[in-house]
Amino acid sequence: DNTNESAISGRLINHDYTTFHYRTAAAELVCTTIYFTLYFSIIITCKRLNIDGNSSLLIVCYSGGLLVAAFIYLFGNISGGYFSVSVSFVTVMIGKHSIRTFLLYIVAQLVGSILAVCIICILFPHPQSNGYYTSLLIIPNHGIGASRVIAMELFLSFVACYAFLTISNWHASLGPLVTGFLVSTLIFIGSTTGGGCINLARLFGPALFANIWTKQYLYWIGTWLGSTAAGFFTGYVHQKMDTIKWTDV
Amino acid sequence: DNTNESAISGRLINHDYTTFHYRTAAAELVCTTIYFTLYFSIIITCKRLNIDGNSSLLIVCYSGGLLVAAFIYLFGNISGGYFSVSVSFVTVMIGKHSIRTFLLYIVAQLVGSILAVCIICILFPHPQSNGYYTSLLIIPNHGIGASRVIAMELFLSFVACYAFLTISNWHASLGPLVTGFLVSTLIFIGSTTGGGCINLARLFGPALFANIWTKQYLYWIGTWLGSTAAGFFTGYVHQKMDTIKWTDV
Amino acid sequence: DNTNESAISGRLINHDYTTFHYRTAAAELVCTTIYFTLYFSIIITCKRLNIDGNSSLLIVCYSGGLLVAAFIYLFGNISGGYFSVSVSFVTVMIGKHSIRTFLLYIVAQLVGSILAVCIICILFPHPQSNGYYTSLLIIPNHGIGASRVIAMELFLSFVACYAFLTISNWHASLGPLVTGFLVSTLIFIGSTTGGGCINLARLFGPALFANIWTKQYLYWIGTWLGSTAAGFFTGYVHQKMDTIKWTDV
Amino acid sequence: DNTNESAISGRLINHDYTTFHYRTAAAELVCTTIYFTLYFSIIITCKRLNIDGNSSLLIVCYSGGLLVAAFIYLFGNISGGYFSVSVSFVTVMIGKHSIRTFLLYIVAQLVGSILAVCIICILFPHPQSNGYYTSLLIIPNHGIGASRVIAMELFLSFVACYAFLTISNWHASLGPLVTGFLVSTLIFIGSTTGGGCINLARLFGPALFANIWTKQYLYWIGTWLGSTAAGFFTGYVHQKMDTIKWTDV
Repeated sequence: DNTNESAISGRLINHDYTTFHYRTAAAELVCTTIYFTLYFSIIITCKRLNIDGNSSLLIVCYSGGLLVAAFIYLFGNISGGYFSVSVSFVTVMIGKHSIRTFLLYIVAQLVGSILAVCIICILFPHPQSNGYYTSLLIIPNHGIGASRVIAMELFLSFVACYAFLTISNWHASLGPLVTGFLVSTLIFIGSTTGGGCINLARLFGPALFANIWTKQYLYWIGTWLGSTAAGFFTGYVHQKMDTIKWTDV
Repeated sequence: DNTNESAISGRLINHDYTTFHYRTAAAELVCTTIYFTLYFSIIITCKRLNIDGNSSLLIVCYSGGLLVAAFIYLFGNISGGYFSVSVSFVTVMIGKHSIRTFLLYIVAQLVGSILAVCIICILFPHPQSNGYYTSLLIIPNHGIGASRVIAMELFLSFVACYAFLTISNWHASLGPLVTGFLVSTLIFIGSTTGGGCINLARLFGPALFANIWTKQYLYWIGTWLGSTAAGFFTGYVHQKMDTIKWTDV
Repeated sequence: DNTNESAISGRLINHDYTTFHYRTAAAELVCTTIYFTLYFSIIITCKRLNIDGNSSLLIVCYSGGLLVAAFIYLFGNISGGYFSVSVSFVTVMIGKHSIRTFLLYIVAQLVGSILAVCIICILFPHPQSNGYYTSLLIIPNHGIGASRVIAMELFLSFVACYAFLTISNWHASLGPLVTGFLVSTLIFIGSTTGGGCINLARLFGPALFANIWTKQYLYWIGTWLGSTAAGFFTGYVHQKMDTIKWTDV
Repeated sequence: DNTNESAISGRLINHDYTTFHYRTAAAELVCTTIYFTLYFSIIITCKRLNIDGNSSLLIVCYSGGLLVAAFIYLFGNISGGYFSVSVSFVTVMIGKHSIRTFLLYIVAQLVGSILAVCIICILFPHPQSNGYYTSLLIIPNHGIGASRVIAMELFLSFVACYAFLTISNWHASLGPLVTGFLVSTLIFIGSTTGGGCINLARLFGPALFANIWTKQYLYWIGTWLGSTAAGFFTGYVHQKMDTIKWTDV
């Protein structure tokens, strides 16, 4: 039903899903490709400039967060601006999209991640010999057990999905900016255990090009658990709170 | 009376306090737990990355300020998004909440601080042997007298509470963001004397786990004096200024 | 006339100036005192943490800019949130305030600057022996001639006053934030010639406590020329543009 | 037609182009001159402070991005706040400006770039002997082929123009800020191949003063291709999407 969707999302209205979901998936593909190209370019540029590990991490965290904000503004009212498997999943959970749209979005995001690595190969010289594919990889840090990676991914995904569902929609004008700030913090916090990735599509392209799949399934399990928890929690809070009349904070 | 509350807060309206204060306290508990987990994780991550003291301070200040902003946006219209004993106190002072709600909030914030340290123990390996509890502690810097700690806490609390009361409410959409920027500055300024803490709940959890209570009472005295002063000052300015018709700046 | 004032300022309306200018000057005194205390505290904290000169400059620039933004939000609809002699001067030039209000504001700002140094003496130990007064001083850099200091101050003041007049009022909600970002850049740009100060009241307190008045008159001349130019330019642009109907950008 | 223009731009309405385009070009000249003076001053100040290359790059990227945001706010509803040849070009492509206005704007921007270098000569001592002209130059990095420079410029221009067209107009209040954040990232990403310049006018002044024109034509080709692509893409997306009723996200 449209009414519920608008109430939760405050975004697309009068949307004919049977007509538009291929088109919005195409927009998501464009959005994700440009977003990942910019994100990967930041990491490659830090490597090319020989910036040390900690400074690179801070640059990636904070530029990455601002990118997330910018792309929700740019594509938020075209495709939704999810560019993340877990955020797409949670929108299905709360009944905003059908399973078919969700699957189209997942394909668009994974293909976007691959295309982004292809564009990186055009923009920067000799990606393989310079080790650019492996520098884009996310793998668990040395000495961190599987359960701790899953726990961290669960926590980060929970906060990211909850923020996306809550801020992006209720505080339309500033929500994406605040979501971006939060994503910066989440990437930073996760960096010393699981590698600080909360976007499965971001993992996929580099893993495919480097052909290294070490413990990638931990991220799929962790983020799935986290986004499921966020979906249930948001649903519960909404249900409990729906008798309160909110002012436009 | 509701009218006065709305005029001051511009947030919750048609709120049945006798029904909702347990629920809003529960929301404050969730809010505070996630907030402190993220805040403590930033400090732990700086330690794990071997970032030097001054750089860590800047990261904690500015990420912490953005977190404050994000959480006022996320929970501001559910629980109020205080996650601070002194801010909760000042809302009672201006008649926004009853004493009973205030006490529930204090319990929620202190329990949230403890739960956050528990989650930290799950997310990061071997917290005790790695000295994570003590790195989260706030104690007065070496050679700083009690009176100077109280003076600094009084000043920081005054500015924080005054900003929370004024910006968050009058400039609804940008207020939390500006409050966050101000909190960053306050943490930085206080860092060389009292340790830069203006949130008693943030002190409580780490002190309990490390079982170190050195001069913690100075913070309780200083922030209480500061928030009381902010409450009186805000009340005085409001009373004097209420004959002016403000435009929506 | 009120209409013109509202058109230009979009701030205070229905203001009885004969009644309120003492009160708004008192608010400006409080505003300026807290603002300078925070600003000076940032500089002192950088010194106490032994942060190197360039890093301190960046911290002061960017924290200072955010402080300016925060204080225009906090006090913008009480006293105007000028805390600067040149900005107060330009508001008189465009007919927003009377000469009498202007003089009260100047006194409030200079006294605020002195009070801020007094509070610094309470918050931090041994200010004189630690050289805090001199570290707050602004004097022209070694080898920079008087004419170049005046040229830089003229340019910085012109941009600052023009931004304050234009952004703060036309784009009410984001204006102060953007003004703050601009102030950060202006302080940085001016740092290697005149010292990067565009606020005469900020110069006054530290000069008085350190009792060093080297070439202070250059700043008074430069900023006065710059704010006069901004006043004329804004007036000219407004007059030329007043036949265009603006949308609310 | 006015309606289409407003729909796309949401900025100037009731504009008599035959009367105003000289005036708006004059405003663009003032805007561009001040903008480039500030931008060039940041680079010169980094050099004067002996800040290392990578730190200077980060300062220029992020201060530059905030400057872009500030100047779109300041001049966006006077001249449009383009200060870029490629952005001006794309506004002609989508039918917002006539060719005559476009040519006036290009002249204004190139002259603005020259005037900015002149003002730099007044503000800072001995620009030639200190090597300020060459430090403002943008030339392709050593070992980077012409095709890769063009590819990078095409990509950066595409994203910049697309963002300018989309965010600045649809999300009026936050658009310029987000555009600024994006520009920061674009300058950073391009820094290791083409030099990270997406503004031809910014190239022109320093090249003229230093009288070095090495491979400048690559930037003209690359940004022209990128802005053309952005114009077509935006037009296509708009056309495809015009049957959807958007909410005000």
